[in-house]
Amino acid sequence: MKHIHIIGIGTGNPEHVTIQAINAMNAADVIFVPLKGAAKEELAEVRRDICERYVTRPGIRISEFAVPQRQTADRSYPQSVDTWHAEIALIYKELISGIPDDGRGAFLVWGDPSLYDSTIRIIERVRQDAGVDFDYSVIPGITSIQALAASHRIPVNLVGKPIEITTGRKLALAGLQAPTTIVMLDGEQAFAKIDDPDAEIFWGAYLGTEDEIVRSGRLGDIAADIVALRAEARQRHGWIMDIYLLRKGRDFEE
Amino acid sequence: MKHIHIIGIGTGNPEHVTIQAINAMNAADVIFVPLKGAAKEELAEVRRDICERYVTRPGIRISEFAVPQRQTADRSYPQSVDTWHAEIALIYKELISGIPDDGRGAFLVWGDPSLYDSTIRIIERVRQDAGVDFDYSVIPGITSIQALAASHRIPVNLVGKPIEITTGRKLALAGLQAPTTIVMLDGEQAFAKIDDPDAEIFWGAYLGTEDEIVRSGRLGDIAADIVALRAEARQRHGWIMDIYLLRKGRDFEE
Repeated sequence: MKHIHIIGIGTGNPEHVTIQAINAMNAADVIFVPLKGAAKEELAEVRRDICERYVTRPGIRISEFAVPQRQTADRSYPQSVDTWHAEIALIYKELISGIPDDGRGAFLVWGDPSLYDSTIRIIERVRQDAGVDFDYSVIPGITSIQALAASHRIPVNLVGKPIEITTGRKLALAGLQAPTTIVMLDGEQAFAKIDDPDAEIFWGAYLGTEDEIVRSGRLGDIAADIVALRAEARQRHGWIMDIYLLRKGRDFEE
Repeated sequence: MKHIHIIGIGTGNPEHVTIQAINAMNAADVIFVPLKGAAKEELAEVRRDICERYVTRPGIRISEFAVPQRQTADRSYPQSVDTWHAEIALIYKELISGIPDDGRGAFLVWGDPSLYDSTIRIIERVRQDAGVDFDYSVIPGITSIQALAASHRIPVNLVGKPIEITTGRKLALAGLQAPTTIVMLDGEQAFAKIDDPDAEIFWGAYLGTEDEIVRSGRLGDIAADIVALRAEARQRHGWIMDIYLLRKGRDFEE
Protein backbone atom coordinates (compact mmCIF):
# COMPACT_ATOMS: atom_id res chain seq x y z
CA MET A 1 0.00 0.00 0.00
CA LYS A 2 1.10 3.61 -0.53
CA HIS A 3 2.30 5.43 2.58
CA ILE A 4 2.21 9.16 3.32
CA HIS A 5 4.42 10.87 5.91
CA ILE A 6 3.03 14.13 7.26
CA ILE A 7 6.23 15.81 8.41
CA GLY A 8 6.57 18.79 10.75
CA ILE A 9 9.58 20.88 9.68
CA GLY A 10 9.71 23.48 12.45
CA THR A 11 9.29 27.20 12.08
CA GLY A 12 11.71 29.00 9.85
CA ASN A 13 15.06 27.73 11.12
CA PRO A 14 16.13 24.81 8.87
CA GLU A 15 17.97 23.42 11.91
CA HIS A 16 14.63 22.82 13.65
CA VAL A 17 14.30 19.71 11.48
CA THR A 18 14.54 16.41 13.38
CA ILE A 19 16.46 13.27 12.40
CA GLN A 20 13.10 11.49 12.15
CA ALA A 21 11.92 14.09 9.62
CA ILE A 22 15.13 13.80 7.59
CA ASN A 23 14.86 10.01 7.49
CA ALA A 24 11.23 10.20 6.38
CA MET A 25 12.08 12.71 3.63
CA ASN A 26 14.81 10.39 2.36
CA ALA A 27 12.46 7.40 2.41
CA ALA A 28 10.02 9.19 0.09
CA ASP A 29 9.59 8.78 -3.66
CA VAL A 30 8.11 12.26 -3.81
CA ILE A 31 8.05 15.23 -1.43
CA PHE A 32 5.10 17.60 -1.73
CA VAL A 33 5.92 21.24 -1.02
CA PRO A 34 2.96 23.62 -0.65
CA LEU A 35 3.12 27.12 -2.16
CA LYS A 36 0.84 29.69 -0.55
CA GLY A 37 1.04 32.74 -2.81
CA ALA A 38 3.63 35.44 -3.50
CA ALA A 39 3.42 36.98 -0.02
CA LYS A 40 4.71 33.74 1.50
CA GLU A 41 7.45 33.11 -1.05
CA GLU A 42 9.96 33.40 1.80
CA LEU A 43 8.34 30.44 3.55
CA ALA A 44 8.53 28.41 0.34
CA GLU A 45 12.25 29.26 0.24
CA VAL A 46 12.70 27.77 3.72
CA ARG A 47 10.99 24.56 2.55
CA ARG A 48 13.23 24.41 -0.55
CA ASP A 49 16.31 25.06 1.60
CA ILE A 50 15.30 22.15 3.86
CA CYS A 51 14.97 19.82 0.87
CA GLU A 52 18.34 20.96 -0.53
CA ARG A 53 20.14 20.49 2.79
CA TYR A 54 18.70 17.21 3.93
CA VAL A 55 17.43 15.20 0.95
CA THR A 56 20.50 13.14 0.09
CA ARG A 57 19.09 9.99 -1.52
CA PRO A 58 19.16 10.35 -5.32
CA GLY A 59 15.97 10.15 -7.36
CA ILE A 60 13.54 11.78 -4.94
CA ARG A 61 11.09 14.02 -6.77
CA ILE A 62 10.20 17.41 -5.24
CA SER A 63 6.67 18.37 -6.26
CA GLU A 64 5.50 21.92 -5.54
CA PHE A 65 1.77 22.59 -5.55
CA ALA A 66 -0.33 25.71 -5.08
CA VAL A 67 -2.67 25.82 -2.06
CA PRO A 68 -5.94 27.65 -2.82
CA GLN A 69 -6.98 30.62 -0.67
CA ARG A 70 -9.86 30.22 1.76
CA GLN A 71 -12.96 32.07 0.50
CA THR A 72 -14.77 33.85 3.32
CA ALA A 73 -17.45 35.89 1.49
CA ASP A 74 -21.03 34.97 2.44
CA ARG A 75 -19.87 32.03 4.56
CA SER A 76 -19.66 31.26 8.24
CA TYR A 77 -16.17 30.41 9.54
CA PRO A 78 -16.90 26.64 9.74
CA GLN A 79 -18.44 26.68 6.24
CA SER A 80 -15.49 28.51 4.76
CA VAL A 81 -13.00 26.10 6.36
CA ASP A 82 -15.01 23.04 5.34
CA THR A 83 -15.25 24.12 1.69
CA TRP A 84 -11.56 25.02 1.66
CA HIS A 85 -10.56 21.62 3.07
CA ALA A 86 -12.71 19.91 0.41
CA GLU A 87 -10.84 21.82 -2.33
CA ILE A 88 -7.44 20.92 -0.89
CA ALA A 89 -8.52 17.28 -0.48
CA LEU A 90 -9.08 17.10 -4.28
CA ILE A 91 -5.52 18.36 -4.84
CA TYR A 92 -4.07 15.89 -2.30
CA LYS A 93 -5.97 13.04 -3.93
CA GLU A 94 -4.41 13.84 -7.29
CA LEU A 95 -0.94 14.15 -5.77
CA ILE A 96 -1.27 10.85 -3.94
CA SER A 97 -2.61 9.14 -7.06
CA GLY A 98 0.66 10.06 -8.76
CA ILE A 99 2.80 8.16 -6.21
CA PRO A 100 4.01 4.79 -7.53
CA ASP A 101 2.20 1.68 -6.18
CA ASP A 102 3.63 0.76 -2.76
CA GLY A 103 5.57 4.05 -2.90
CA ARG A 104 5.97 6.76 -0.29
CA GLY A 105 5.01 10.41 -0.33
CA ALA A 106 5.85 13.17 2.15
CA PHE A 107 3.94 16.35 2.93
CA LEU A 108 6.05 19.06 4.59
CA VAL A 109 4.11 21.00 7.23
CA TRP A 110 5.19 24.26 8.89
CA GLY A 111 5.61 23.79 12.66
CA ASP A 112 3.93 20.60 13.91
CA PRO A 113 1.09 18.83 12.04
CA SER A 114 -0.95 18.60 15.26
CA LEU A 115 -1.13 22.31 16.12
CA TYR A 116 -3.47 24.66 14.22
CA ASP A 117 -2.79 22.83 10.99
CA SER A 118 -5.28 20.82 8.95
CA THR A 119 -3.09 18.47 6.91
CA ILE A 120 -4.10 15.51 9.11
CA ARG A 121 -7.81 16.40 8.77
CA ILE A 122 -7.54 16.74 5.01
CA ILE A 123 -5.56 13.50 4.60
CA GLU A 124 -8.29 11.73 6.63
CA ARG A 125 -10.88 13.24 4.28
CA VAL A 126 -9.00 11.88 1.24
CA ARG A 127 -8.82 8.43 2.86
CA GLN A 128 -12.54 8.38 3.51
CA ASP A 129 -13.30 9.17 -0.11
CA ALA A 130 -13.11 6.22 -2.44
CA GLY A 131 -10.58 6.14 -5.25
CA VAL A 132 -7.16 6.16 -3.60
CA ASP A 133 -5.85 3.69 -1.04
CA PHE A 134 -3.03 4.59 1.36
CA ASP A 135 -1.89 4.63 4.97
CA TYR A 136 -0.13 7.51 6.70
CA SER A 137 1.93 8.51 9.72
CA VAL A 138 2.72 11.79 11.45
CA ILE A 139 6.16 13.13 12.38
CA PRO A 140 6.24 15.94 14.94
CA GLY A 141 8.09 19.23 14.41
CA ILE A 142 9.08 22.25 16.50
CA THR A 143 6.18 24.71 16.84
CA SER A 144 6.26 28.51 16.92
CA ILE A 145 5.28 28.29 20.61
CA GLN A 146 8.53 26.47 21.33
CA ALA A 147 10.54 28.85 19.14
CA LEU A 148 8.98 31.80 21.00
CA ALA A 149 9.80 30.36 24.42
CA ALA A 150 13.36 29.44 23.36
CA SER A 151 14.07 32.93 21.99
CA HIS A 152 12.74 34.56 25.16
CA ARG A 153 14.41 31.86 27.30
CA ILE A 154 11.26 31.38 29.36
CA PRO A 155 9.30 28.41 30.64
CA VAL A 156 5.83 28.51 29.08
CA ASN A 157 4.06 27.58 32.32
CA LEU A 158 4.36 28.96 35.82
CA VAL A 159 5.32 26.19 38.30
CA GLY A 160 2.46 23.65 38.40
CA LYS A 161 0.07 26.07 36.65
CA PRO A 162 -2.04 25.52 33.50
CA ILE A 163 -1.56 26.98 30.02
CA GLU A 164 -4.19 28.10 27.55
CA ILE A 165 -3.54 28.16 23.81
CA THR A 166 -6.09 30.21 21.93
CA THR A 167 -6.77 32.54 19.02
CA GLY A 168 -6.91 36.35 18.92
CA ARG A 169 -10.64 36.23 18.32
CA LYS A 170 -11.27 34.06 21.41
CA LEU A 171 -8.96 36.17 23.58
CA ALA A 172 -10.83 39.32 22.56
CA LEU A 173 -14.12 37.66 23.53
CA ALA A 174 -13.09 35.94 26.77
CA GLY A 175 -10.40 38.26 28.15
CA LEU A 176 -7.25 37.09 29.90
CA GLN A 177 -8.07 34.12 32.14
CA ALA A 178 -5.22 31.63 32.56
CA PRO A 179 -1.85 32.31 34.26
CA THR A 180 -0.27 31.63 30.84
CA THR A 181 -2.15 32.36 27.61
CA ILE A 182 -0.53 31.72 24.22
CA VAL A 183 -2.20 33.43 21.29
CA MET A 184 -1.84 32.19 17.72
CA LEU A 185 -3.55 33.38 14.55
CA ASP A 186 -4.21 36.88 15.86
CA GLY A 187 -4.91 39.25 13.00
CA GLU A 188 -6.48 41.87 15.28
CA GLN A 189 -3.78 42.40 17.94
CA ALA A 190 -6.17 41.37 20.70
CA PHE A 191 -3.41 41.90 23.30
CA ALA A 192 -3.74 45.67 22.84
CA LYS A 193 -7.40 45.53 23.87
CA ILE A 194 -6.85 43.55 27.10
CA ASP A 195 -7.41 45.63 30.20
CA ASP A 196 -4.69 44.01 32.31
CA PRO A 197 -1.71 46.38 32.15
CA ASP A 198 0.34 44.41 34.71
CA ALA A 199 0.32 41.22 32.63
CA GLU A 200 3.61 40.44 30.90
CA ILE A 201 3.78 39.92 27.15
CA PHE A 202 6.40 37.90 25.25
CA TRP A 203 5.94 38.56 21.54
CA GLY A 204 7.75 37.26 18.47
CA ALA A 205 7.46 37.51 14.68
CA TYR A 206 9.21 35.63 11.83
CA LEU A 207 10.45 33.27 14.56
CA GLY A 208 13.38 31.07 13.63
CA THR A 209 14.22 33.12 10.52
CA GLU A 210 16.92 35.75 10.02
CA ASP A 211 14.19 38.39 10.31
CA GLU A 212 13.08 37.27 13.79
CA ILE A 213 11.88 40.10 16.05
CA VAL A 214 11.10 39.58 19.74
CA ARG A 215 9.86 41.98 22.41
CA SER A 216 8.86 41.45 26.03
CA GLY A 217 7.70 43.57 28.93
CA ARG A 218 4.73 44.81 30.94
CA LEU A 219 1.70 44.86 28.65
CA GLY A 220 0.73 48.38 29.73
CA ASP A 221 4.21 49.64 28.81
CA ILE A 222 4.82 48.00 25.45
CA ALA A 223 1.50 47.00 23.82
CA ALA A 224 1.38 50.17 21.67
CA ASP A 225 5.04 49.75 20.65
CA ILE A 226 4.39 46.18 19.50
CA VAL A 227 1.32 47.25 17.49
CA ALA A 228 3.43 49.88 15.69
CA LEU A 229 6.40 47.54 15.20
CA ARG A 230 4.13 44.81 13.86
CA ALA A 231 2.44 47.16 11.37
CA GLU A 232 5.81 48.43 10.13
CA ALA A 233 7.26 44.90 9.76
CA ARG A 234 4.15 43.67 7.98
CA GLN A 235 4.33 46.57 5.54
CA ARG A 236 8.00 45.97 4.84
CA HIS A 237 7.76 42.17 4.32
CA GLY A 238 4.32 42.11 2.71
CA TRP A 239 3.25 39.50 5.31
CA ILE A 240 3.70 38.62 8.97
CA MET A 241 3.51 35.50 11.14
CA ASP A 242 3.57 36.34 14.83
CA ILE A 243 2.63 34.79 18.15
CA TYR A 244 2.70 35.87 21.78
CA LEU A 245 2.46 34.65 25.33
CA LEU A 246 0.68 36.57 28.11
CA ARG A 247 1.54 35.84 31.74
CA LYS A 248 -0.26 36.81 34.93
CA GLY A 249 1.42 36.26 38.30
CA ARG A 250 4.73 34.66 39.21
CA ASP A 251 6.22 31.31 40.11
CA PHE A 252 5.48 30.17 43.65
CA GLU A 253 2.60 32.60 44.12
CA GLU A 254 -0.49 30.80 45.37
CA MET B 1 32.34 34.32 28.75
CA LYS B 2 31.15 30.75 29.31
CA HIS B 3 28.04 29.72 27.41
CA ILE B 4 25.43 27.11 28.36
CA HIS B 5 23.05 25.48 25.88
CA ILE B 6 19.85 24.12 27.41
CA ILE B 7 18.93 21.50 24.83
CA GLY B 8 15.55 19.79 24.38
CA ILE B 9 16.14 16.21 23.20
CA GLY B 10 12.57 15.04 22.59
CA THR B 11 10.76 12.23 24.36
CA GLY B 12 12.27 8.80 24.12
CA ASN B 13 12.85 8.44 20.39
CA PRO B 14 16.49 9.39 19.66
CA GLU B 15 15.30 10.51 16.20
CA HIS B 16 13.31 13.34 17.83
CA VAL B 17 16.60 15.20 18.14
CA THR B 18 16.91 18.28 15.89
CA ILE B 19 19.88 19.38 13.79
CA GLN B 20 20.10 22.47 16.02
CA ALA B 21 20.44 20.22 19.10
CA ILE B 22 23.10 18.06 17.43
CA ASN B 23 25.11 21.13 16.42
CA ALA B 24 24.90 22.54 19.96
CA MET B 25 26.01 19.22 21.47
CA ASN B 26 29.01 19.15 19.15
CA ALA B 27 29.92 22.75 20.00
CA ALA B 28 30.16 21.86 23.72
CA ASP B 29 33.26 21.16 25.78
CA VAL B 30 31.14 19.18 28.21
CA ILE B 31 27.63 17.69 28.05
CA PHE B 32 25.79 17.32 31.36
CA VAL B 33 23.52 14.28 31.56
CA PRO B 34 21.14 14.12 34.55
CA LEU B 35 20.52 10.81 36.33
CA LYS B 36 17.23 10.55 38.20
CA GLY B 37 17.47 7.31 40.18
CA ALA B 38 17.31 3.62 39.31
CA ALA B 39 13.65 3.72 38.25
CA LYS B 40 14.52 6.07 35.43
CA GLU B 41 17.66 4.25 34.30
CA GLU B 42 15.90 3.61 30.99
CA LEU B 43 15.62 7.36 30.43
CA ALA B 44 19.33 7.78 31.19
CA GLU B 45 19.98 5.10 28.54
CA VAL B 46 18.11 7.18 25.95
CA ARG B 47 20.28 10.20 26.82
CA ARG B 48 23.45 8.10 26.51
CA ASP B 49 22.24 6.67 23.21
CA ILE B 50 21.70 10.23 21.92
CA CYS B 51 25.25 11.21 22.89
CA GLU B 52 26.68 8.08 21.25
CA ARG B 53 24.75 8.59 18.02
CA TYR B 54 25.20 12.30 17.52
CA VAL B 55 28.31 13.55 19.34
CA THR B 56 30.94 13.23 16.62
CA ARG B 57 33.53 15.89 17.49
CA PRO B 58 36.40 14.29 19.45
CA GLY B 59 37.27 15.45 22.94
CA ILE B 60 33.78 16.29 24.24
CA ARG B 61 33.38 15.24 27.86
CA ILE B 62 30.11 13.57 28.94
CA SER B 63 29.44 14.37 32.59
CA GLU B 64 26.66 12.47 34.37
CA PHE B 65 25.29 13.94 37.58
CA ALA B 66 22.65 12.76 40.06
CA VAL B 67 19.53 14.92 40.48
CA PRO B 68 18.28 14.97 44.10
CA GLN B 69 14.71 13.92 44.86
CA ARG B 70 12.17 16.58 45.83
CA GLN B 71 11.36 16.36 49.55
CA THR B 72 7.65 16.87 50.20
CA ALA B 73 7.29 16.07 53.95
CA ASP B 74 6.04 19.02 56.05
CA ARG B 75 6.23 21.41 53.09
CA SER B 76 3.73 23.12 50.83
CA TYR B 77 4.10 22.39 47.11
CA PRO B 78 5.73 25.79 46.36
CA GLN B 79 8.11 25.41 49.34
CA SER B 80 9.13 21.91 48.31
CA VAL B 81 9.81 23.00 44.70
CA ASP B 82 11.68 26.12 45.80
CA THR B 83 13.99 24.18 48.16
CA TRP B 84 14.55 21.51 45.52
CA HIS B 85 15.48 24.11 42.89
CA ALA B 86 17.95 25.68 45.36
CA GLU B 87 19.64 22.29 45.85
CA ILE B 88 19.89 21.66 42.11
CA ALA B 89 21.21 25.21 41.56
CA LEU B 90 24.19 24.39 43.81
CA ILE B 91 24.95 21.33 41.68
CA TYR B 92 24.63 23.34 38.43
CA LYS B 93 26.92 26.01 39.81
CA GLU B 94 29.63 23.45 40.50
CA LEU B 95 29.20 21.86 37.05
CA ILE B 96 29.39 25.23 35.31
CA SER B 97 32.44 26.23 37.37
CA GLY B 98 34.21 23.19 35.89
CA ILE B 99 33.75 24.38 32.29
CA PRO B 100 36.95 25.94 30.83
CA ASP B 101 36.99 29.76 30.59
CA ASP B 102 35.15 30.87 27.44
CA GLY B 103 34.04 27.23 27.05
CA ARG B 104 30.63 25.78 26.33
CA GLY B 105 28.46 23.42 28.35
CA ALA B 106 25.24 21.66 27.36
CA PHE B 107 22.40 20.45 29.57
CA LEU B 108 20.21 17.79 27.95
CA VAL B 109 16.53 18.18 28.85
CA TRP B 110 13.76 15.63 28.25
CA GLY B 111 11.11 17.03 25.88
CA ASP B 112 11.33 20.82 25.54
CA PRO B 113 12.99 23.07 28.16
CA SER B 114 9.97 25.40 28.11
CA LEU B 115 7.25 22.91 29.07
CA TYR B 116 6.89 21.69 32.68
CA ASP B 117 10.64 21.67 33.12
CA SER B 118 12.64 23.89 35.46
CA THR B 119 16.13 23.88 33.94
CA ILE B 120 15.68 27.45 32.66
CA ARG B 121 14.46 28.63 36.10
CA ILE B 122 17.36 26.96 37.86
CA ILE B 123 19.95 28.29 35.40
CA GLU B 124 18.52 31.79 36.00
CA ARG B 125 18.88 31.20 39.75
CA VAL B 126 22.56 30.27 39.29
CA ARG B 127 23.15 33.39 37.18
CA GLN B 128 21.62 35.63 39.82
CA ASP B 129 23.90 34.20 42.50
CA ALA B 130 27.37 35.64 42.51
CA GLY B 131 30.37 33.42 41.83
CA VAL B 132 29.98 32.14 38.29
CA ASP B 133 29.60 34.22 35.15
CA PHE B 134 27.99 32.79 32.01
CA ASP B 135 25.38 33.37 29.33
CA TYR B 136 22.95 30.76 28.00
CA SER B 137 20.57 29.90 25.20
CA VAL B 138 17.65 27.50 24.79
CA ILE B 139 17.13 24.95 22.01
CA PRO B 140 13.62 23.57 21.63
CA GLY B 141 12.80 19.85 21.51
CA ILE B 142 9.79 17.67 20.68
CA THR B 143 7.41 17.40 23.66
CA SER B 144 5.36 14.43 24.82
CA ILE B 145 2.24 16.35 23.69
CA GLN B 146 3.53 16.28 20.13
CA ALA B 147 4.59 12.63 20.40
CA LEU B 148 1.09 11.78 21.70
CA ALA B 149 -0.66 13.62 18.87
CA ALA B 150 1.66 12.09 16.24
CA SER B 151 1.11 8.53 17.51
CA HIS B 152 -2.67 9.03 17.55
CA ARG B 153 -2.49 10.95 14.23
CA ILE B 154 -4.75 13.68 15.58
CA PRO B 155 -4.75 17.48 15.52
CA VAL B 156 -4.50 18.71 19.11
CA ASN B 157 -7.09 21.46 18.62
CA LEU B 158 -10.55 21.40 17.09
CA VAL B 159 -10.79 23.87 14.16
CA GLY B 160 -10.32 27.41 15.56
CA LYS B 161 -10.85 26.21 19.16
CA PRO B 162 -8.63 26.70 22.24
CA ILE B 163 -6.48 24.13 24.06
CA GLU B 164 -5.83 23.84 27.78
CA ILE B 165 -2.67 22.19 29.12
CA THR B 166 -2.96 21.32 32.79
CA THR B 167 -2.05 18.89 35.56
CA GLY B 168 -4.03 15.97 36.99
CA ARG B 169 -4.52 17.86 40.23
CA LYS B 170 -6.00 20.90 38.47
CA LEU B 171 -8.24 18.74 36.25
CA ALA B 172 -9.61 16.95 39.32
CA LEU B 173 -10.42 20.33 40.91
CA ALA B 174 -11.81 22.20 37.90
CA GLY B 175 -13.39 19.42 35.83
CA LEU B 176 -13.32 19.25 32.05
CA GLN B 177 -13.77 22.74 30.61
CA ALA B 178 -11.98 23.31 27.28
CA PRO B 179 -12.79 21.57 23.96
CA THR B 180 -9.25 20.10 24.18
CA THR B 181 -7.56 19.46 27.53
CA ILE B 182 -4.07 17.97 27.70
CA VAL B 183 -3.08 16.54 31.07
CA MET B 184 0.54 16.13 32.14
CA LEU B 185 1.97 15.05 35.49
CA ASP B 186 -1.12 13.10 36.52
CA GLY B 187 -0.29 10.67 39.29
CA GLU B 188 -3.92 10.21 40.29
CA GLN B 189 -5.59 9.29 36.98
CA ALA B 190 -7.92 12.25 37.18
CA PHE B 191 -9.53 11.25 33.86
CA ALA B 192 -11.26 8.35 35.60
CA LYS B 193 -13.03 10.74 37.98
CA ILE B 194 -14.39 13.08 35.27
CA ASP B 195 -18.14 12.79 34.87
CA ASP B 196 -18.21 13.31 31.11
CA PRO B 197 -18.53 9.83 29.58
CA ASP B 198 -18.96 11.13 26.02
CA ALA B 199 -15.62 12.92 26.00
CA GLU B 200 -12.92 11.20 23.97
CA ILE B 201 -9.58 10.28 25.52
CA PHE B 202 -6.26 9.81 23.68
CA TRP B 203 -3.77 8.30 26.12
CA GLY B 204 -0.12 7.33 25.76
CA ALA B 205 2.72 6.04 27.96
CA TYR B 206 6.46 5.63 27.34
CA LEU B 207 5.88 7.70 24.20
CA GLY B 208 8.61 7.56 21.59
CA THR B 209 10.24 4.48 23.13
CA GLU B 210 9.98 0.83 22.09
CA ASP B 211 7.60 0.32 25.02
CA GLU B 212 5.11 2.94 23.81
CA ILE B 213 1.46 2.12 24.58
CA VAL B 214 -1.44 4.17 23.21
CA ARG B 215 -5.19 3.86 23.66
CA SER B 216 -8.10 6.00 22.51
CA GLY B 217 -11.87 5.95 22.70
CA ARG B 218 -14.95 7.23 24.48
CA LEU B 219 -13.97 8.04 28.07
CA GLY B 220 -16.98 6.17 29.50
CA ASP B 221 -15.96 3.03 27.58
CA ILE B 222 -12.22 2.86 28.23
CA ALA B 223 -11.29 4.86 31.35
CA ALA B 224 -11.28 1.74 33.57
CA ASP B 225 -9.23 -0.22 31.01
CA ILE B 226 -6.60 2.52 30.92
CA VAL B 227 -6.40 2.64 34.73
CA ALA B 228 -5.77 -1.13 34.81
CA LEU B 229 -3.32 -1.06 31.89
CA ARG B 230 -1.41 1.83 33.47
CA ALA B 231 -1.12 0.07 36.84
CA GLU B 232 0.12 -3.11 35.17
CA ALA B 233 2.69 -1.26 33.02
CA ARG B 234 3.93 0.77 35.98
CA GLN B 235 4.40 -2.40 38.01
CA ARG B 236 6.29 -4.11 35.20
CA HIS B 237 8.64 -1.20 34.40
CA GLY B 238 9.02 0.15 37.93
CA TRP B 239 8.03 3.61 36.63
CA ILE B 240 5.68 5.27 34.17
CA MET B 241 5.52 8.50 32.21
CA ASP B 242 2.14 9.06 30.60
CA ILE B 243 0.04 11.87 29.19
CA TYR B 244 -3.42 12.21 27.70
CA LEU B 245 -5.69 14.46 25.73
CA LEU B 246 -9.42 14.85 26.41
CA ARG B 247 -11.69 16.17 23.68
CA LYS B 248 -15.27 17.43 23.86
CA GLY B 249 -17.21 18.10 20.66
CA ARG B 250 -16.17 17.89 17.03
CA ASP B 251 -14.71 20.01 14.27
CA PHE B 252 -17.14 22.48 12.72
CA GLU B 253 -19.62 22.27 15.60
CA GLU B 254 -20.48 25.74 16.87
